[in-house]
Amino acid sequence: MAAGGDRLAGVRGVLLDISGVLYDSGEGGGRPIAGSVDAVARLKRSGLKVRFCTNESQKSRGRLVGELRGLGFDVSEAEVTAPPPAACRLLQERGLRPHLLVHDEVRSEFDHIDTSNPNCVVIGDAGDHFSYRNLNRAFQVLMGLADPVLLSLGSGRYYKQSSGLMLDVGCYMKALEYACGIQAQVVGKPSPEFFRSALRELGVEAHQAVMVGDDIVGDVGGAQRCGMRALQVRTGKFRPSDEHHPEVKADGYVDNLAEAVDLLLQHADQ
Amino acid sequence: MAAGGDRLAGVRGVLLDISGVLYDSGEGGGRPIAGSVDAVARLKRSGLKVRFCTNESQKSRGRLVGELRGLGFDVSEAEVTAPPPAACRLLQERGLRPHLLVHDEVRSEFDHIDTSNPNCVVIGDAGDHFSYRNLNRAFQVLMGLADPVLLSLGSGRYYKQSSGLMLDVGCYMKALEYACGIQAQVVGKPSPEFFRSALRELGVEAHQAVMVGDDIVGDVGGAQRCGMRALQVRTGKFRPSDEHHPEVKADGYVDNLAEAVDLLLQHADQ
Repeated sequence: MAAGGDRLAGVRGVLLDISGVLYDSGEGGGRPIAGSVDAVARLKRSGLKVRFCTNESQKSRGRLVGELRGLGFDVSEAEVTAPPPAACRLLQERGLRPHLLVHDEVRSEFDHIDTSNPNCVVIGDAGDHFSYRNLNRAFQVLMGLADPVLLSLGSGRYYKQSSGLMLDVGCYMKALEYACGIQAQVVGKPSPEFFRSALRELGVEAHQAVMVGDDIVGDVGGAQRCGMRALQVRTGKFRPSDEHHPEVKADGYVDNLAEAVDLLLQHADQ
Repeated sequence: MAAGGDRLAGVRGVLLDISGVLYDSGEGGGRPIAGSVDAVARLKRSGLKVRFCTNESQKSRGRLVGELRGLGFDVSEAEVTAPPPAACRLLQERGLRPHLLVHDEVRSEFDHIDTSNPNCVVIGDAGDHFSYRNLNRAFQVLMGLADPVLLSLGSGRYYKQSSGLMLDVGCYMKALEYACGIQAQVVGKPSPEFFRSALRELGVEAHQAVMVGDDIVGDVGGAQRCGMRALQVRTGKFRPSDEHHPEVKADGYVDNLAEAVDLLLQHADQ
């Protein structure tokens, strides 16, 4: 076992990534990763604080939680930290009116936001809505602004669906950055603000928390930069080369969430 | 006039970009830029060698030349240097079998290339064919290769159609580079190999040639790195900030091709 349970002493709270850790999304709501339903239940019974920290921006939190509950997971909407609400707070603080390039499913999360006469673009994981026409429209809005602002709901390269690897929002963010000669502001992992807001909601300090994710850069590297510890699971988008990543080394590598929870229950809060 | 005609002594050959210099593409074949039809005719009558050097990868050369001739330009297919034939030579030299993410219009340029069991991806300006599904398919092919090779027919950020600015292939190249953690090989401007092949076809040395284009990086910077001189026209995708580009300074800025030809006929071959 390449896990490093000895590095988990003093953990009081756990942030769990969802896609690739709890389940692989896909047709018909996706499928749970073996052992994960039970692992979440054991973690919650253990007394450790638990929160779900996702970059999901293709589904509303309501829809996501509904699907997860349908698969047997014990999760409620109030336990999920996701990019759209964080983006809405930021838009309101800065007086920004977005042109939205997001999936129809998450558009409702922006219902209370003024989108008239846009002065920025918000891009999410729009999936099939990433047509040439839609991306070009977002590009034209940005090019028409004296000071173009692009907010991206995550910066992921790809995620795993049951049918295979799928391009994530980060790729389209890079396309627009290149087209306009600008740098996007990422709302979501690995943004430190996003992790800190999840920690506040979890109610523990960074040094008392561990992130469990399948993304070596977005989950593991991002959490570590905030002073948290992080485990990478060998499920979801995990690839063997992640264990030799040139810049990021997880505090432990585990086969799946079930093994992560075994370790946490053995070593945490010691 | 901010042109710098004094820098044009000794010019014997001229490379002309097409889109944004001769015409703005768009619905119904696009429209010529004022004075450009006559400017090409005058240039050809002058005795200077002339060749067209384009990154057009949304139309076959036959279709492109047909449209230009329809607008009144004196141009033949044999006078055009374009990325698809250069890519075919490279594929054959290296034994590569491409998965093609290109516009249907240019697919015929690859008819003689083996595309079975792909071991690389070729991406062109696919326009509306840049759907999420198609880009994802190219991504999955690359991720399935031990040594992923991505050839891009140009690296342009955007171009100007009569209806407005349009995303070019470079943005989608950047998206795939980011998704796969790789670097694409660009076939087309500003690749030095591409300019050198245009110079060979033009039949003059780099120091005897001038490039006329609307792209400060792809046309002007690329040509200058090959030892050519370069004029930027204030048509097509030109933006006023180009005249203060942090890295590239043209040998002259002219309002349009007509003014470039005026200068060339006054100062070239002296």
